[in-house]
Amino acid sequence: MAPRTASLKKPNFIDMTTTRTIGIGILGFGTVGQGVWKHLTEKQSDLESRLGVKLDLRKAAVRDLKKKRGVKIAASKLTKNPLEVIEDPKVHVVCELIGGTTKARELTLRALSLGKVVVSANKALLCEHGPEIFAAVRKHGGQFLFEASVAGGIPIIKAIREGLVANRFDLIVGILNGTCNHILTRMGEDGLSFEDALKEAQTLGYAEADPTLDVDGIDAWHKASILAWLAHGKWAPAARTLVEGIRKIGPADIDFARRFGFALKHLAVIRRDFKAGWMTVGVYPALVPNRDILARVSGVNNGITLRGDVAGATTLTGRGAGGDATASAVIGDIVDAIAALTGAAPQGLSSEALATREKAGRALRMADLDEIVSPFYLRLSLLDKAGVSEGVYRIFSKHKVSIARVIQYEHPNQGRGTVTLSTYPVSERKMSAVLTELRRLKTVLEEPVILRIFSPES
Amino acid sequence: MAPRTASLKKPNFIDMTTTRTIGIGILGFGTVGQGVWKHLTEKQSDLESRLGVKLDLRKAAVRDLKKKRGVKIAASKLTKNPLEVIEDPKVHVVCELIGGTTKARELTLRALSLGKVVVSANKALLCEHGPEIFAAVRKHGGQFLFEASVAGGIPIIKAIREGLVANRFDLIVGILNGTCNHILTRMGEDGLSFEDALKEAQTLGYAEADPTLDVDGIDAWHKASILAWLAHGKWAPAARTLVEGIRKIGPADIDFARRFGFALKHLAVIRRDFKAGWMTVGVYPALVPNRDILARVSGVNNGITLRGDVAGATTLTGRGAGGDATASAVIGDIVDAIAALTGAAPQGLSSEALATREKAGRALRMADLDEIVSPFYLRLSLLDKAGVSEGVYRIFSKHKVSIARVIQYEHPNQGRGTVTLSTYPVSERKMSAVLTELRRLKTVLEEPVILRIFSPES
Repeated sequence: MAPRTASLKKPNFIDMTTTRTIGIGILGFGTVGQGVWKHLTEKQSDLESRLGVKLDLRKAAVRDLKKKRGVKIAASKLTKNPLEVIEDPKVHVVCELIGGTTKARELTLRALSLGKVVVSANKALLCEHGPEIFAAVRKHGGQFLFEASVAGGIPIIKAIREGLVANRFDLIVGILNGTCNHILTRMGEDGLSFEDALKEAQTLGYAEADPTLDVDGIDAWHKASILAWLAHGKWAPAARTLVEGIRKIGPADIDFARRFGFALKHLAVIRRDFKAGWMTVGVYPALVPNRDILARVSGVNNGITLRGDVAGATTLTGRGAGGDATASAVIGDIVDAIAALTGAAPQGLSSEALATREKAGRALRMADLDEIVSPFYLRLSLLDKAGVSEGVYRIFSKHKVSIARVIQYEHPNQGRGTVTLSTYPVSERKMSAVLTELRRLKTVLEEPVILRIFSPES
Repeated sequence: MAPRTASLKKPNFIDMTTTRTIGIGILGFGTVGQGVWKHLTEKQSDLESRLGVKLDLRKAAVRDLKKKRGVKIAASKLTKNPLEVIEDPKVHVVCELIGGTTKARELTLRALSLGKVVVSANKALLCEHGPEIFAAVRKHGGQFLFEASVAGGIPIIKAIREGLVANRFDLIVGILNGTCNHILTRMGEDGLSFEDALKEAQTLGYAEADPTLDVDGIDAWHKASILAWLAHGKWAPAARTLVEGIRKIGPADIDFARRFGFALKHLAVIRRDFKAGWMTVGVYPALVPNRDILARVSGVNNGITLRGDVAGATTLTGRGAGGDATASAVIGDIVDAIAALTGAAPQGLSSEALATREKAGRALRMADLDEIVSPFYLRLSLLDKAGVSEGVYRIFSKHKVSIARVIQYEHPNQGRGTVTLSTYPVSERKMSAVLTELRRLKTVLEEPVILRIFSPES
């Protein structure tokens, strides 16, 4: 079949004099597909004004038309035939979220042969058929974007490709598999056996019934190959890549690690020696020194350190998988693709985007002092005399500020003491009232020192 | 003066039918300016093939023509007149690296009035004159890019604007000032007083002779304002922003933090309540729970957590300042600007970029087993009998593998013991030879378990 050009007049560009609408189609409507649909719908008007185009969520190809879904979608937008999505001339961006490497390969190549943009979360496909896919991109002028294939919630592909483009990376090291990391965290911090930690991960939905791809390192290996290729241009041959899983880790290993200040992590390590002209790619469990920030990446999170010759070491951590984190990456790619298709200025900085941002800003007010709430820390210098503490604490109770922790220090022969304390969460307004009264006490000898205690929740 | 359009035929676009060369000019040739020049020169051919255009490093405006510089630059490329750089019709991208808000404002607006791209590291300028700058961008169709203004080595602007574009952020919290973080790290971990830690930071070049901008929170406040504006569209009024420095921190505060499991950090905190319609911006020292990854960002590093409604919490850490980290951000912006000017596909994925990447890959080989070196960890299950250890350790000495640490466990009544040990760095080839011989010993009862010990250095 001869490639059709549909409404794509020119490779890489849509003729924006005839169309101001970009059509989006989705193949595969599982957790990620539904997440993409949901969040695109919710943020459609914001994204449209950022990009200066209309978005048309046209179609989703599913396996079962009648299945109940958690996301609202008109029945007319569902189809069982993925080609109906791909070949729709009004679909410019195709999200391949079905997984696997057979059907997915076929559909991806078909879409690329039409010069379309394919946004993919499919690491296995990219790993196994990368050269073929990019040959199709080069031949037909489409795009293949894959931020979602590695560490969903972390824009790592973009960081390597764009933000840190000035750098050559001699070391890329990461925790790329959330399942392994969850299991190792539970084993290392809570003493679970591998079997129990795996069972728990399966119950929590962090591991598949057949956990092979995760715990034997295959998933991490796919991701490591993609990062190595992106950074260095070479697909590491499987035979030259060390791929180990975590099944062999036992209590003695955990014990050794803990005693000598290491955390056990499943790592992907990509090194390059620019002088000698080689690279290595390996994924394996390793002992990571506790001082390394990756030792602190726990649970299902992912984390990647990029060491560049210009920027030094940059580490990105966040959610590695899960429908929403992956959807976030897919949407980032869709927006990127559209910006490139329409020749927009860097996203968020076009005139439209600036106008939208200003509009959003006008609707926004600064919080009142009653609305800013946090736990506080306070240091008081007090006269060393009976009854002083009572006078201080009376002010806290008057304003209903609860105290969480106290340390009182004596300063012999100085006639004064230091009290440090922390409170439960309280508003800036209340704390300020407490402070005003404290300042008035003759027994408070210096200006009190006040610090906020950071808590993500308040 | 009427704005000239120079060779910029159309806002946001260069007519690439007449030019395949992008001219770059630099205003201010201090550490950052020289870093940009140096790294752009070194990576010119790589960047050119990624972008499919020639780069012309045209001119740098300096204060003193005769000053000795660490970077090679032809005398003919230096000028004392910044307008000579800006008004050169062959300069498309102007890097404003002089700092300050008077001259820098004037020059930035002049370049923008010509429809040019301005790449800036100037946080104060953006903060104080943001609306005026972006009005000029909108009027004349240029670009103003500012990745370098916040956390140089960390592509945080791009993460908010592009990678995580699907997200609304209810919390952005970061360590944005490396000087404060260095001082607080030394006070908290090593018991230095504020004065001594500041003096040390000044000696190391991490703090200015007049440290006010850093230690009183002004620098972090500028950066926080930029992040808040980028994420929420509103410039936080100074009068409604809490700005505190770290001068007041004393030993009792450090002691309290340590006893109750906190680290003392100078934080920028931007919260938004989407229901109530408010935001808060504050920069102040705070107690951060040790379990929070920001508590682990130490020394001159920066770290920022973005909490989005789709991707969850993503944290980026790395070098915040310094000539090279900032240069990395400036170059990232230059490349972005050129990609937008020429309408290229997402960077690094254009046909040219793919070809370059493939070419680089062909020149690259996988490392030999002799070249992959790391410390190893080994677990052996040994027959519990006199002389067994000697036989094991003989193999290590034969291959000149030094042992760093050992723990031996007994398993009473099982007739076997477990030995766990770590080695000094050794090649995969040597370790593999050791392993082969160990397997042959009758006293080694199970397949040995081998793990690598991660070290950034090897």
